[in-house]
Amino acid sequence: MAGNSRDTGRSVTGRALSVLTAFDGEHTRLTLTSIARRSAIPLATAHRLVGELEAWGALERDDDGRYAIGLRLWEIGMLTPVRAVLREAALPHMQELCESTRENVHLAVRDRWEAVFVEKLSLPRSVSIVSRTGGRLPLHPTGVGRVLLAHAPTRVVREYCERGLARYTPYTITEPGRLARELRAVRSRGFARTSEEMTLGNCSVAVPVRDGTGSVVAALGVVARSVRVEHSKLVKPLLPAAEAIGRRLAEHDLARSDAG
Amino acid sequence: MAGNSRDTGRSVTGRALSVLTAFDGEHTRLTLTSIARRSAIPLATAHRLVGELEAWGALERDDDGRYAIGLRLWEIGMLTPVRAVLREAALPHMQELCESTRENVHLAVRDRWEAVFVEKLSLPRSVSIVSRTGGRLPLHPTGVGRVLLAHAPTRVVREYCERGLARYTPYTITEPGRLARELRAVRSRGFARTSEEMTLGNCSVAVPVRDGTGSVVAALGVVARSVRVEHSKLVKPLLPAAEAIGRRLAEHDLARSDAG
Repeated sequence: MAGNSRDTGRSVTGRALSVLTAFDGEHTRLTLTSIARRSAIPLATAHRLVGELEAWGALERDDDGRYAIGLRLWEIGMLTPVRAVLREAALPHMQELCESTRENVHLAVRDRWEAVFVEKLSLPRSVSIVSRTGGRLPLHPTGVGRVLLAHAPTRVVREYCERGLARYTPYTITEPGRLARELRAVRSRGFARTSEEMTLGNCSVAVPVRDGTGSVVAALGVVARSVRVEHSKLVKPLLPAAEAIGRRLAEHDLARSDAG
Repeated sequence: MAGNSRDTGRSVTGRALSVLTAFDGEHTRLTLTSIARRSAIPLATAHRLVGELEAWGALERDDDGRYAIGLRLWEIGMLTPVRAVLREAALPHMQELCESTRENVHLAVRDRWEAVFVEKLSLPRSVSIVSRTGGRLPLHPTGVGRVLLAHAPTRVVREYCERGLARYTPYTITEPGRLARELRAVRSRGFARTSEEMTLGNCSVAVPVRDGTGSVVAALGVVARSVRVEHSKLVKPLLPAAEAIGRRLAEHDLARSDAG
């Protein structure tokens, strides 16, 4: 199709889309000037595009005159299959898991070099963690990321290591050889575990979620305080939950092929 | 700004956006031809726009050659304040509510004439309901909708009634006078209740969620089988949950004004 870069030309559509990318987790409300600067668009053009996007509902303006992503864009984004199918299949099981473990539970998919958090559940008393629904984290120091990497094509793992394994804590695995051994262990024992590799004091356990064809399409993980849990106790409820989600996905695939 | 209609002109941006509106809850995967037809754009133009949207990540193409909303659009949509602030504040309390009631719990905001479901939680054994996260339902026959209508400006209620109150079951309130009395009751007793007005066999109870200024910004509701619950038993856990969410919203507002 039209090139493999996400930074496609600067057609009018491209410019309208780059207005949207001015927003991220740290920049959820922006003035017109910031939007123009962050998306590298002349102010007059930004003004016109922002007006069109606001009229349609892709942006909304608050009382201070700053802009934020609009409700309508969120509604349309919710139609993405990963959200509409995977997350709907997983949510009830994630709730049960959150209830039985009393810990943070999350579901992630791989997008290129990162784990994208499709859903994250936590009770009011759960430990604070860095993931955010719709947010991204690196693959090598997180439980879900390591499951996704362990089941990614060899080429992806090689390229990921070549880009360099960043260190987040003194315990982060940063040597490719050690990571490769760890990924083999993830595949053979059926789950990944990390201890304080992303955030000091936190540990995580994660398992693969497979679709009807047996492909790993997501990872389901639990994050807890290192001091208060044993890995093995977290794995036990994770495995049946991941299997139940997989069965729901398989049913959905069958329903789809029937409909087709 | 640029007009109050959502169907703003057919500028290039407008056309690109109308490609996105070809998708809805019943049409999550579409062929290029269907996209062109549903968005009333010539096939050649649709082909070019879809290519640009796909390259950017707003659309993704599956193995069958059909298109769906892309992961990247979902990620950006997740930045909308209603999602990023309200839903994050509410989710842990909604989980506790779901756990204690064992029923469907949902959170909705009003967008013009409809209740938009910001989040919906249900356990694997919960009763099946019509709401869908990111979906919309009418205001008068749903518990959350009735709370939102009860706290909407008088003008909104009048216009809503003038548009006609559709009947969904034999029990739906369709007379404006009766609805007005019901809305007054919602305000005075602090919660709304419906019995089989949207779906036969289901009943709902909902309460307002207020921000730091006391304004009603959302409604929190529980939907259950009519036969197995009493309204009063559902109201009891709802009120403290709505208050806890309101406190979190107030804290967030304070944090924001500090930061500003």
